[in-house]
Amino acid sequence: MKARKVVASDRLELIGIDGLPEIRAGDDLTRLFLDALEAKNLIVEDGDAIVFTSKIISKSEGRIVDLADVRVSGEAQRVAREMDKEPQIVQLIFEEAKEIVRMRNKHLIVETKHGFVCANAGVDQSNVEEGKAILLPKDPQKSAYRLRKELEERTGKRIAVLISDSFGRAFRDGVTGICVGVSGIPALLDRRGEEDRFGKIARITKEAVADEICAAANLVMGEFREGIPIVLVRGLALESCEGEIQDLLFKREVDLFR
Amino acid sequence: MKARKVVASDRLELIGIDGLPEIRAGDDLTRLFLDALEAKNLIVEDGDAIVFTSKIISKSEGRIVDLADVRVSGEAQRVAREMDKEPQIVQLIFEEAKEIVRMRNKHLIVETKHGFVCANAGVDQSNVEEGKAILLPKDPQKSAYRLRKELEERTGKRIAVLISDSFGRAFRDGVTGICVGVSGIPALLDRRGEEDRFGKIARITKEAVADEICAAANLVMGEFREGIPIVLVRGLALESCEGEIQDLLFKREVDLFR
Repeated sequence: MKARKVVASDRLELIGIDGLPEIRAGDDLTRLFLDALEAKNLIVEDGDAIVFTSKIISKSEGRIVDLADVRVSGEAQRVAREMDKEPQIVQLIFEEAKEIVRMRNKHLIVETKHGFVCANAGVDQSNVEEGKAILLPKDPQKSAYRLRKELEERTGKRIAVLISDSFGRAFRDGVTGICVGVSGIPALLDRRGEEDRFGKIARITKEAVADEICAAANLVMGEFREGIPIVLVRGLALESCEGEIQDLLFKREVDLFR
Repeated sequence: MKARKVVASDRLELIGIDGLPEIRAGDDLTRLFLDALEAKNLIVEDGDAIVFTSKIISKSEGRIVDLADVRVSGEAQRVAREMDKEPQIVQLIFEEAKEIVRMRNKHLIVETKHGFVCANAGVDQSNVEEGKAILLPKDPQKSAYRLRKELEERTGKRIAVLISDSFGRAFRDGVTGICVGVSGIPALLDRRGEEDRFGKIARITKEAVADEICAAANLVMGEFREGIPIVLVRGLALESCEGEIQDLLFKREVDLFR
């Protein structure tokens, strides 16, 4: 779903929400978030956007794999040897992938079953116990929707939920926060038809606001420590709508870089 | 230059600075910014990062071209016909480009002389008078450095300056704010060697903080209207250093997508 509404107010505030316990499968993230918020003497307001790192979503949904339980195929063995990676990790990447996009040097870039193009299908060994790996949420779009509904029900406020991860990019070094699930605001703001300051009509600009919000939140979360797994973003003036992560993902046929 | 310092505080504030006049060649941007800030009853503080849209840098540096003055080559004529673009615009793109990266349908993705991979070499016809086009700043890294030095001299504060533009991405639809020049903070935060919450050592994560800051600022600027050309970012806790945009740009040989 695309929206045409003009974007933010002239002030935006990002507040890191820490103090959550280590998340386990089945944990009630909505409750843990609201408790942590209360501990900071904050409450949710209409129009707030809440960014959750995908890591805690995955943990609450039990998306942690014990590497000892992974049955490695011959193909995964071969690629692991060639790329000097752990065979179990390569096997998990293959299972999470729909298609291999690039396999060069030590880089394994794939399209995940969700449609995200990223390194290692998002399979990660950081911030999880030794001998385990953490996968992206099964359906982060659905997770965002569910979290938003729960939060709106418990607080009575109209809010947005975004789930963030951090991916590398083509052409530019370093990872940035990006969105893997969004509910309550548009993923993509369609500005075609708006006038510029000289009265000319915009022809092509679509702004990936959900990715920009997750990039901003990543500055507060930090990349590696996961000390701040949730960020409250206050001051966005985006139109309320369902939100759909697929709006951000190029179909293979129109992607210039595959 | 790379840095190892942990990133932001748990609160980040973005304040849009509007009220500037239409910028003309030779304008003193530092003065105009400080006046606009004062009109909002704000002052610069130590540690502030100030994001300028590249558009007003280009305007102040006279990087506006009258299309009637552009001498179009035969090659630009041919490509313009083929891609259904204005010949003068194609000529300007060719002049700004070091290399064509993709030329397909109506998309002309190039590497600019600065080393940025982007559509149309950043040549833009929005927010400029009819019959004119605006180019990226000649050397936005140098512009960022100069602006920082001027601002630090006039305010006595230690600050950072970033120059932002908005580029499309591979794999994902929509543009996001990105950095084309940065001074006073690292462009890329090198987190290799940091420990995760289980004491494991990070092996590869580098975070493109300068791009994340510009993405965040773009939420306040808005994409098309340019009503808010400057954003003050307060609350970053990044180490003070020169900053170098080249840290964000993959060398051609290591880029998986060229």
